[in-house]
Amino acid sequence: MKDDPRLLTEGEAEKVEMASLFLPALGRMAVCGGTHGNELSGVYLVQEMERQRKEKGDGVWPIPVTTVLSNPRAVEECRRYIDTDMNRCFSTATLSSPMTDSSPYEVQHAQELNNLLGLKGSADAIDMICDLHNTTSNMGLTLIHYSTSDWVTMHICKYLQTKITKVPVRVLVMDVPISDAYSLESVSKHGFSIEVGPQPHGVVRADIYLIMKEAVDMTIDWIHKFNSGTVFEGGDMEAFKFIKSIDYPRDPETRTLTAAIHPQLQDRDFCLLKRGDPLFLSFSGETVTYEEEGSLHPFFINECAYYEKGIAFHLAKKLTLTIPTVQVKKD
Amino acid sequence: MKDDPRLLTEGEAEKVEMASLFLPALGRMAVCGGTHGNELSGVYLVQEMERQRKEKGDGVWPIPVTTVLSNPRAVEECRRYIDTDMNRCFSTATLSSPMTDSSPYEVQHAQELNNLLGLKGSADAIDMICDLHNTTSNMGLTLIHYSTSDWVTMHICKYLQTKITKVPVRVLVMDVPISDAYSLESVSKHGFSIEVGPQPHGVVRADIYLIMKEAVDMTIDWIHKFNSGTVFEGGDMEAFKFIKSIDYPRDPETRTLTAAIHPQLQDRDFCLLKRGDPLFLSFSGETVTYEEEGSLHPFFINECAYYEKGIAFHLAKKLTLTIPTVQVKKD
Repeated sequence: MKDDPRLLTEGEAEKVEMASLFLPALGRMAVCGGTHGNELSGVYLVQEMERQRKEKGDGVWPIPVTTVLSNPRAVEECRRYIDTDMNRCFSTATLSSPMTDSSPYEVQHAQELNNLLGLKGSADAIDMICDLHNTTSNMGLTLIHYSTSDWVTMHICKYLQTKITKVPVRVLVMDVPISDAYSLESVSKHGFSIEVGPQPHGVVRADIYLIMKEAVDMTIDWIHKFNSGTVFEGGDMEAFKFIKSIDYPRDPETRTLTAAIHPQLQDRDFCLLKRGDPLFLSFSGETVTYEEEGSLHPFFINECAYYEKGIAFHLAKKLTLTIPTVQVKKD
Repeated sequence: MKDDPRLLTEGEAEKVEMASLFLPALGRMAVCGGTHGNELSGVYLVQEMERQRKEKGDGVWPIPVTTVLSNPRAVEECRRYIDTDMNRCFSTATLSSPMTDSSPYEVQHAQELNNLLGLKGSADAIDMICDLHNTTSNMGLTLIHYSTSDWVTMHICKYLQTKITKVPVRVLVMDVPISDAYSLESVSKHGFSIEVGPQPHGVVRADIYLIMKEAVDMTIDWIHKFNSGTVFEGGDMEAFKFIKSIDYPRDPETRTLTAAIHPQLQDRDFCLLKRGDPLFLSFSGETVTYEEEGSLHPFFINECAYYEKGIAFHLAKKLTLTIPTVQVKKD
């Protein structure tokens, strides 16, 4: 990475010209917390950023930043949601569904956020959303987004992988069409959700808060450098692609869990799962093992909010992505 | 500890006779889970015990055991409580308060549990309640009860301290009059609550479940041995006594937290806190230190359910208790 492409020699400049993608400067960014009201690192980080702006003015950050407490009623009650999971309400279909008095609070509020930050899929949509989440899973810092070909987002992920060394930084790609993508960051042109864990919901841990803060600071840093003309070199980067979900063993009649995540799998998010590895330990002491052929990587292992969704963990495949060199398009 | 006092030599028997307290055999024991509906180890352990009884009959345990899912509506909704914290509803005053249609669900249900397991303070009260709890604090296995002179309970605590080696086992004494004691186990003649952590509320971890199961198994084991005539020798044991609670730093107007537990204090429950030690790290980066004179031991550090109670952690004093040798009184 070179800080000022205007200082390149002629030969170097040609090389950059050849390989570089010239992309528009990024305008405004939104930092959203409390999309799930009991994921507290994001709630307190957004409140702290709002306090800083009040104290020091808009110039506190080198780029324009909007801060949003996404689900204020759920934050107030320290619950994930009031009527329905808001981070499933941002598909194009749900955002354009007709509203009635009996529409779930979160669907109504998702449409308001789309008016504020979107409209999703339009030229008016905000350039970047960072949506802040916590998980009870031992996922370190995980950056989740929807496309392997959004080079701005991929470059920011790569930048965070390079800059943040205290915890593992993984990139997770869902790879679904953006219109079907149902989470808040799909409203913006670029963007990702930031998952940091392990942290119990309803609790804020300083170590987890500081990792989240560093991720937001480094994202702002990247955008500022990019807009200022820094060339970000391409190359290979590691990412994970969502494959499928696995549920807990359950009683066939009552649907209650009959087993917990096995102690040998607990806290080992993104390990390589091989045939015969233990998955679950039943409450009466029997081990359930992984019996599939392909080796995959489990993540969101024992996430609190996924019990009701029928998910004990997700499985992902590891990918190596090649991304191009990017720099800002000059006017 | 000798398994059969009838096998002692004459001289030994005299020594035991001199020092021993002869106490009545213990009858029925209750194992209660789900007093807080989102503390899942106890919920799943009670359900597993009920499954075992169904499969193998009452003889599955060597003593009579009643299993209770204490707050079924809160368990159903995976919430701590519906209207009010049920584990604050078992004082003599609350148990005898008149019921109306608008009485909180938990107060009504506490009175039903008192009818089932009490009456509190009466000769009919059940001999022993183990009430199962989880905490987001790193408290290992902590046994909480109300009196330093309930020798049966103290002996069981000492037995668990000896037998369970995978995690630290601490004994915490609240030392309040039993009529004021507001938690479920105060209904029984003896008893304690079992706290195991760290575990996020709404999550079950196999490692935490197994520790709780071992504590219940060892309690049943002690009662069976005691009833069978085993002499349990007295001596010194370590315990902690509750002194006071400390709240988070909060915004004076909004009452919202302005700081989290400091990373150097987080997860260090029962450490020795000295003047100048860090307590909190504010969201803007300032450290708040411990400025009191006396050295005390913090516990329930960053417990999720205590945010709303205004408690960042409790402080305790370490005690050495001397307990007498006990054995069962023969009919």
